[in-house]
Amino acid sequence: MKTAATTAAAFALIGAAPAAAEVDVETAYILNTFSFLINGALVMWMAAGFAMLESGLVRSKNTATICLKNIALYSVAGLTFYVIGYNLMYMDVSGYIGTFSPFWGPDDSEALAGTFTADGYSSSSDWFFQMVFVGTAASIVSGTLAERTKLWGFLAFVVLLTVIIYPIQGSWTWGGGWLSELGFSDYAGSTIVHSVGGWAALTGAIIVGARKGKYGADGRINPIPGANLPLATLGTFVLWLGWFGFNGGSVLALGSAAAVIEMANVFANTNMAAAGGVVAAMIVTQLLYKKVDLTLALNGAIGGLVSITAEPADPTIGMAILIGAVGGVIIVLAVPLLDKLKIDDVVGAIPAHLFCGIWGTIAVTFSDADATLYAQLVGIVSVGAFVIVVSSACWLLLKYTIGIRAHEEDELLGLDKAELGLEAYPEFGQGTQAL
Amino acid sequence: MKTAATTAAAFALIGAAPAAAEVDVETAYILNTFSFLINGALVMWMAAGFAMLESGLVRSKNTATICLKNIALYSVAGLTFYVIGYNLMYMDVSGYIGTFSPFWGPDDSEALAGTFTADGYSSSSDWFFQMVFVGTAASIVSGTLAERTKLWGFLAFVVLLTVIIYPIQGSWTWGGGWLSELGFSDYAGSTIVHSVGGWAALTGAIIVGARKGKYGADGRINPIPGANLPLATLGTFVLWLGWFGFNGGSVLALGSAAAVIEMANVFANTNMAAAGGVVAAMIVTQLLYKKVDLTLALNGAIGGLVSITAEPADPTIGMAILIGAVGGVIIVLAVPLLDKLKIDDVVGAIPAHLFCGIWGTIAVTFSDADATLYAQLVGIVSVGAFVIVVSSACWLLLKYTIGIRAHEEDELLGLDKAELGLEAYPEFGQGTQAL
Amino acid sequence: MKTAATTAAAFALIGAAPAAAEVDVETAYILNTFSFLINGALVMWMAAGFAMLESGLVRSKNTATICLKNIALYSVAGLTFYVIGYNLMYMDVSGYIGTFSPFWGPDDSEALAGTFTADGYSSSSDWFFQMVFVGTAASIVSGTLAERTKLWGFLAFVVLLTVIIYPIQGSWTWGGGWLSELGFSDYAGSTIVHSVGGWAALTGAIIVGARKGKYGADGRINPIPGANLPLATLGTFVLWLGWFGFNGGSVLALGSAAAVIEMANVFANTNMAAAGGVVAAMIVTQLLYKKVDLTLALNGAIGGLVSITAEPADPTIGMAILIGAVGGVIIVLAVPLLDKLKIDDVVGAIPAHLFCGIWGTIAVTFSDADATLYAQLVGIVSVGAFVIVVSSACWLLLKYTIGIRAHEEDELLGLDKAELGLEAYPEFGQGTQAL
Repeated sequence: MKTAATTAAAFALIGAAPAAAEVDVETAYILNTFSFLINGALVMWMAAGFAMLESGLVRSKNTATICLKNIALYSVAGLTFYVIGYNLMYMDVSGYIGTFSPFWGPDDSEALAGTFTADGYSSSSDWFFQMVFVGTAASIVSGTLAERTKLWGFLAFVVLLTVIIYPIQGSWTWGGGWLSELGFSDYAGSTIVHSVGGWAALTGAIIVGARKGKYGADGRINPIPGANLPLATLGTFVLWLGWFGFNGGSVLALGSAAAVIEMANVFANTNMAAAGGVVAAMIVTQLLYKKVDLTLALNGAIGGLVSITAEPADPTIGMAILIGAVGGVIIVLAVPLLDKLKIDDVVGAIPAHLFCGIWGTIAVTFSDADATLYAQLVGIVSVGAFVIVVSSACWLLLKYTIGIRAHEEDELLGLDKAELGLEAYPEFGQGTQAL
Repeated sequence: MKTAATTAAAFALIGAAPAAAEVDVETAYILNTFSFLINGALVMWMAAGFAMLESGLVRSKNTATICLKNIALYSVAGLTFYVIGYNLMYMDVSGYIGTFSPFWGPDDSEALAGTFTADGYSSSSDWFFQMVFVGTAASIVSGTLAERTKLWGFLAFVVLLTVIIYPIQGSWTWGGGWLSELGFSDYAGSTIVHSVGGWAALTGAIIVGARKGKYGADGRINPIPGANLPLATLGTFVLWLGWFGFNGGSVLALGSAAAVIEMANVFANTNMAAAGGVVAAMIVTQLLYKKVDLTLALNGAIGGLVSITAEPADPTIGMAILIGAVGGVIIVLAVPLLDKLKIDDVVGAIPAHLFCGIWGTIAVTFSDADATLYAQLVGIVSVGAFVIVVSSACWLLLKYTIGIRAHEEDELLGLDKAELGLEAYPEFGQGTQAL
Repeated sequence: MKTAATTAAAFALIGAAPAAAEVDVETAYILNTFSFLINGALVMWMAAGFAMLESGLVRSKNTATICLKNIALYSVAGLTFYVIGYNLMYMDVSGYIGTFSPFWGPDDSEALAGTFTADGYSSSSDWFFQMVFVGTAASIVSGTLAERTKLWGFLAFVVLLTVIIYPIQGSWTWGGGWLSELGFSDYAGSTIVHSVGGWAALTGAIIVGARKGKYGADGRINPIPGANLPLATLGTFVLWLGWFGFNGGSVLALGSAAAVIEMANVFANTNMAAAGGVVAAMIVTQLLYKKVDLTLALNGAIGGLVSITAEPADPTIGMAILIGAVGGVIIVLAVPLLDKLKIDDVVGAIPAHLFCGIWGTIAVTFSDADATLYAQLVGIVSVGAFVIVVSSACWLLLKYTIGIRAHEEDELLGLDKAELGLEAYPEFGQGTQAL
């Protein structure tokens, strides 16, 4: 049994101090890996956050379906990323795409044989951390298109999104492709994750169309309130907590003082951008409407979080607050704008993830001296154009094959009864605003 | 103040490099201990998951009672494990049982005096990690037997389960007893935790009987839908997150590259088995019933998680997906089977924890070369026989003493009003399916 | 690429062993910092816990408002702590107060330049950990004063609480001021956080007055049940999980075996005090009222948690159970006492956070040989007197300026419709106890 005492004695014999000054390479490897696991678990938790946010913001007659869509999309995203997405995004990326070779699982045999570097980590943990990100983009789509898309049609789109759209554009930056070489910078994915989900949601909202009754023939916009606002609040808090992992894990290291200091900045900035988003959204709502709105405040938090995601490490805390606050303002201004355009976004995901994602990607230039406005704009536009084109093609393909839009009578009855044959809240009666 | 700079200078003087290659013993000790704490906190979180899953799947008239049962059982399980369970399971196990001597708390005095090993950890942290597991078995029972058992009668069973049943059979394997010597392998407890809860739930369901009205005199099976499916969904996500700690902490170490690589495999496999369970359950449900069911998909996740729990480290990711997928199929096939046998399992815990627990224990042999089908079957059967006999005796003892079944009029009125004198949702009116 | 193999070869050349006995200073720095981040994230999660607890315990007509208050107060508390609170609490504290100089963000430049100590940590991470604590005191106030305070009036109080009250009294102990020099000991804030929130809630409850209809003219006390008890249960579990971070992170270190052993004791004791609180509250309720009550059991957990917070490291597990159990008993006895005094505490926060906070602060003397009853009482009384005086002044100031109490008709209608123009559960009908 090697004890500290005996080891210390051995050190004393050879005249070395018992404590080193720097992190040894194996400890660094452990810490880097552990960061992926803990932060990745927090990102997985965001799937629960989207599920709760969305199930709180839809009507009760569609609540069970949105729950099922959320747990299913997270599961499907993991499976497709395993089968094809990971290699397409990260394996031998030659500018615009990785390889289509199947992924046979991570390989840590070198490290197990004792060879590792101070910036190394288990490839299993890296795979885990990348995998938990994939569902996020799909969750955004499920929220915007809730209450009117068929379950299997929606899941078919999730397959296409996670097999083609997400990994290919992801390879351009995070896989080391052409955008990366151009200098495009997107720390944890304001563009690569959030705006991708946002563009896919926007094209879907246009192609699938609005919910019946949302926009009256006379131009009237009918509010359709969510059935369970505490659940939506819970979902926002879950996302906030999970975002520490989303941004914090994107340091991609923990094995040095520099890495953990960066992670500390990321945690502090992520929190304060969300706080700035909440308060800004509340103040602007009060000024514009003489009332505060809970769902706008919740989306203000998410808008702040998305806004800081492209660069959560470099800004000062004060700058992070401002970046998040602008995100909160964007939410309040963009939600009615979409309604004017008759784009029916059930949970307000397009303002939060797409508009704030664009804003956050531009805001990188305020604190990161290496980022250029040119590269950031090229990234935003090229990813946007790619996702618009490919996701439109996917939506249209599904529309004219297996079908994506629920039948009108099913939508009226509610997808829970029509598609699942059950009710989310079978015992709770009809209140004042039941539709 | 010892700074890195001065330490580096000192090293320079003696000619040693400032960074070592391997983890020092104290750092390993810290990491091992920290893993128990963080992963253990995630396991504690599973108590919230069971509470939410079960409160979503019972009727509203029994919701407050199931909430109380869940927070009470987790508390009671901790107290009994402190007073007697820990020593019975881990202290001086001589084949079939540990000692009945009271546990006076963990002792870390040696480590505090500077003597520790590279695979050591704080005994407090070990106690914490073992303690949070105990409630899990009891949670399974509360779900199956919801809506008809008395509060104090149920808690009396929890005392017996956590004082006698769980620690004694646990000592056979994890305490180093006879099953361990036989080569029985159960990494995080598909048998030792989940099937134990499942057997206790099964015997309880038979002895206590079905809820009034569940099985009609004419042989008809009446569905009794849960009152709040988003809560059940939340509970499933909470369990999924907590399971990273359940399986990940069961590596029992973090202080080496090998340990963290193993933990990374466990995290990835745990997630993918759950994903496999969800998707398999959905597909099979669609094929069999031409509809998908939310609660079967949720139980598919849990079935996948239980299935991988006996061996989450060794399988490849692809194998983990398949193991979990079989778990999902088991759920869909077993739920109606229990109904045919008139075994009333309110939340579907017996298929998820017992049947998938058995499957997962057998599946160990697919990836662990040291595991034999013989030893696995001996473990499954011996633990099962022990739990069936002892838990039946406990249920019968309680039935004929303090009483375990709620009075018929209390069951009709709902346990919340009858036993607690309150309502879980006093303001929500009567919906279409209120019973 | 520096690999372990080549490093080991280098070590072999100079004759040093590849593994040291003690933690190197950089690893210690990383671990100390990482503890602040992970434990701090858990403390942030407590904001979600308070939001769920309170939204479950108010009536449905005030649910959206309490959700908004909770996410807003956590955001506001972070912003004010950034602008002024942190420096007032921690910067150059001269006995009774820090400095009013603005805080320009943490500075980790020394560590980035390679100079750090074994007990050092990133100042960003320290700021993050201190910041997440601030909201807790404000959450306590929101719970007690729910259902009758205006949104902006309440948030104005939160600003005063977090700008003046919390940081000034905090500087006395945690900032190294006069109470610290006197020997007052409050590990994670039974007094400094919880009783501060409790005193502010108590003065507010007296000055703002009870909800309409709570206390009848004939002296009758009308129970006003909460609308969603599973949410309250969830909130309690969230708080329980978050408390591991609250108390565990207050070790303020992770970079040595002694630190992690202390953290392990804290995790175990925190859990067992909560368990003791639950079981004691249930037993006493059963004895007094011949029934068990869910909300008293939930508050028993919180009472146990608050009670152990002043000293979670030193007690044995058995002592922690007893300290928590006394907290649970306090809850059951104090809740009706407040009603007799016509102090309307909607969620029972004053017994849990103030009374148990006082008890926990006294209980420090049972296990900490350095703590004196005198110093503990001076701390309790001086903090209490300060908070009573200043918070009363703040409440009165707000009462006679912007107004703190909702208009009577708004209170009757519900704050959600009156202040936000929406409903938390628009589809759920009127049940038996809707008021």
